[in-house]
Amino acid sequence: MSLKDTLNGTIVHVEGALAAYVMAYDGIAIDEVVKSDSGFDLQLLSVEYATVLRGIKRTVEVVKAGQMEEVIVTTSSLIVIMRVLNDELFLVLIMAKDGNFGKARYMLRLKSFELLRQLG
Amino acid sequence: MSLKDTLNGTIVHVEGALAAYVMAYDGIAIDEVVKSDSGFDLQLLSVEYATVLRGIKRTVEVVKAGQMEEVIVTTSSLIVIMRVLNDELFLVLIMAKDGNFGKARYMLRLKSFELLRQLG
Repeated sequence: MSLKDTLNGTIVHVEGALAAYVMAYDGIAIDEVVKSDSGFDLQLLSVEYATVLRGIKRTVEVVKAGQMEEVIVTTSSLIVIMRVLNDELFLVLIMAKDGNFGKARYMLRLKSFELLRQLG
Repeated sequence: MSLKDTLNGTIVHVEGALAAYVMAYDGIAIDEVVKSDSGFDLQLLSVEYATVLRGIKRTVEVVKAGQMEEVIVTTSSLIVIMRVLNDELFLVLIMAKDGNFGKARYMLRLKSFELLRQLG
């Protein structure tokens, strides 16, 4: 299975999922699946959130709170779940506010192992 | 009831909760309740996370993803849940990794209304 297949497998099982990306911390997408036109600039969003994640990674190191694993940002319109894959890459799921949040977190955790095998 | 009582009411009902803060975006704690000695510098952590939250607030505005509501950072040791109260203040709950995550989110949402009434 390709990375794209795995990303697709992530979003088809999550109600409300709009897009999934494997991204590098510099904001470059390694692969992506965008489900439908959401009316948001998801590309811009994932690039900007890569910067956010770099900042949090630094903070977590400063406060000695272990290794960063997951960051979730909820706004009035969207939920963005980012899951660290390794030192270079992370997985992003963008979903509608009323999507299935619990399932999204579960699927990301599950698929992150699969993606790491495919990337390794 | 005081702010401290409400903060205390938040953490006593959440298994694994270590501390709760009402904080300003500049990193100054308005009030706080620390449950027990966790071995982490929770004060430093909450100050550093205020900076993180300011960064995310800017990003959310740039990408036009609505209003920031909640940010959750999970590391290998801790879960930090931050919930926006208004333009100046936010609520932070720091909990152990194996704490009751669902209950924590629910309690923060619930208590944020109570805190806003007390602050208003």
